Amino acid sequence: MQDQNKVRDLHSKHKGKLSINSVYPLSDGELLADIYTPGVAEIASMIEQDPSTAKDYTISGKTVAAISDGSAVLGLGDVGPKASLPILEGKAAIFKEFADVDAYPLAIEANSPEEFIGHVRAIAGNFAAINLEDISAPNCFAIENALASSLDIPVMHDDQHATAIAVLAALKSALKITDKDKVRVVITGAGPAGYALTKLLGNTKTILELFIDDIKVIDSKGVLAYERQNLPSFKEELVTLTNQARTMALKEAIKGADVFIGLSRGGILSKEMIATMNPNPIIFALANPDPEIMPDEAINAGAAIVATGRSDFPNQVNNALIFPGVFKGLLESNQTKVTDEMKLRVADTIFRYHESEATKQSILPSILDKELHKLVAKAVAQ
Amino acid sequence: MQDQNKVRDLHSKHKGKLSINSVYPLSDGELLADIYTPGVAEIASMIEQDPSTAKDYTISGKTVAAISDGSAVLGLGDVGPKASLPILEGKAAIFKEFADVDAYPLAIEANSPEEFIGHVRAIAGNFAAINLEDISAPNCFAIENALASSLDIPVMHDDQHATAIAVLAALKSALKITDKDKVRVVITGAGPAGYALTKLLGNTKTILELFIDDIKVIDSKGVLAYERQNLPSFKEELVTLTNQARTMALKEAIKGADVFIGLSRGGILSKEMIATMNPNPIIFALANPDPEIMPDEAINAGAAIVATGRSDFPNQVNNALIFPGVFKGLLESNQTKVTDEMKLRVADTIFRYHESEATKQSILPSILDKELHKLVAKAVAQ
Repeated sequence: MQDQNKVRDLHSKHKGKLSINSVYPLSDGELLADIYTPGVAEIASMIEQDPSTAKDYTISGKTVAAISDGSAVLGLGDVGPKASLPILEGKAAIFKEFADVDAYPLAIEANSPEEFIGHVRAIAGNFAAINLEDISAPNCFAIENALASSLDIPVMHDDQHATAIAVLAALKSALKITDKDKVRVVITGAGPAGYALTKLLGNTKTILELFIDDIKVIDSKGVLAYERQNLPSFKEELVTLTNQARTMALKEAIKGADVFIGLSRGGILSKEMIATMNPNPIIFALANPDPEIMPDEAINAGAAIVATGRSDFPNQVNNALIFPGVFKGLLESNQTKVTDEMKLRVADTIFRYHESEATKQSILPSILDKELHKLVAKAVAQ
Repeated sequence: MQDQNKVRDLHSKHKGKLSINSVYPLSDGELLADIYTPGVAEIASMIEQDPSTAKDYTISGKTVAAISDGSAVLGLGDVGPKASLPILEGKAAIFKEFADVDAYPLAIEANSPEEFIGHVRAIAGNFAAINLEDISAPNCFAIENALASSLDIPVMHDDQHATAIAVLAALKSALKITDKDKVRVVITGAGPAGYALTKLLGNTKTILELFIDDIKVIDSKGVLAYERQNLPSFKEELVTLTNQARTMALKEAIKGADVFIGLSRGGILSKEMIATMNPNPIIFALANPDPEIMPDEAINAGAAIVATGRSDFPNQVNNALIFPGVFKGLLESNQTKVTDEMKLRVADTIFRYHESEATKQSILPSILDKELHKLVAKAVAQ
């Protein structure tokens, strides 16, 4: 059990988790004259004449913005921009500690996706890349598309792509360990993560059909299927990719499945449901902070492998495994687009890096392993 | 002469001058669980229920935003947002090194003051205070007023208020050293700094009339005076405060003056003009990076005291003397307004701190003196 007083103390002691420092100690006048006035005027004039040089002479060439509107924070939902800030700060801390990337958190108050996009564009010049965080569907899709297509820096919605990559790496490892293939997969949650994961699995079928036989994606009303009426377009897209005719509740859908991937909310998977799955099922209960089922319960119900999104249980499947290295790789190689090929390469890199040591209690390398983040960056830069 | 290659190298070596760090080393899983998931969910929930707690548990309780639109950068003019970033970074470095205040630079791209205000409002929740920088007149007045009146955090336009305070402290010291009173002052530049300085001097006449007899403020067309037609309202305000009937060029206005305060642009003051001033004149040539007259020329022309805004000449009158301590004091005392009383108190504090050591080559304490910034913070908090 986590000590909540300790958590509060850690957050309040320094008011948050980040510190902004000068890379130069300003203890002598000469250095001050070089990095402040009059020296800085030379740099400002240079950038005025050629704004692209800002990337070389300011932090805009290295800093990732971690940006959210607070509309889909962890599994907590629409908590508002201010409440997203502790998560954004945590991401910035992880960026620095795991991959030596500078990142700054910005929670943005906006009344519409258009407003949000306008605000992000206005500040984008300060950053080398934008990591969108904790934005609800369907707005997150429009926002990511609009920003990625109008800005000349990488823009990635973490909850979609980094999560999808992490799940794919974990899935490859879990299937190998349990010696499964042609599996039937049930995904709960047709939000950003469920959407991106299903698209990645669906778009790359030629590679993945070797081990995936069937995918059912479930939202709050049941399995996404052709017979469902009035689906928003992004869910219609998932129907096409998963090719389900009939809808049904989770309780039905889970029968005979091999893999459960929860990207929805705490407590929705029961021991009884696990009992109806194929033998030795794989359970990824990834909702944060409360998993779809607690690991000990899932194990008791017969799960062969259980993973969560949390760092205090075995098998953490968390996008923190992905985003530090992905952005490091994008920045180092001057790429602006995150492609499906890149995602598959990263998932494969992580899987292979850990393959020889993988066990049921350790399907993925630790997110604390700095070597891993370097390899992810390399896989992206390749 | 400054080594421009060294200046460029210092700016490019680390891509800018700031680094963003985690206050906790994320080397063990327990700490990660406390400051990231699942621990952070507790903090997010708390802030959702009471957004005012964000100030206690996130960097929004301690961080100053240094924000500009790049419309009036140093003496360089409207260089655009990207070119303002090196100056904003320098300010953030100074905030940390001189006063242990975290500050983050944001250059904002906007097509109008209204747009700019909208963008700043959207991100204001991430910050404990806003230091506006390098914004041209008259937009800077509308922007500062709109933000200060709508946000519940301190908002201060540095180029106005911090510069005015620094000049007042320097003026008190220079007058004491040269044993002058009832002086005639000529101010060139009716931009943000000239406006705020004249207002401070004019609004506090009862205190200041002891040593100031006459103020002439000069813009690009001559002395601001009642006979000038179609003045913008902020310049009309200055006419009322300075009570000048006739307009004239700098060359005329400077005749018989005791003090020249340049807040305009490089090279506009000549040796010949100084020769027409009263004996032992005080010359503050504060335009950056190029002063209104170079110090050696002013001395040769008979100036008793010469000050510039630069750190590579004696007598630097720079708002870096002011803003670190002022914001530290505002944050420590939970005040949101910068009052005239506060400004006079700070100027007086700086003057008195240095009074016994002051010389013609050292009218102000060094901006590198950390004790000074503590005293400024105290004077604000008082």
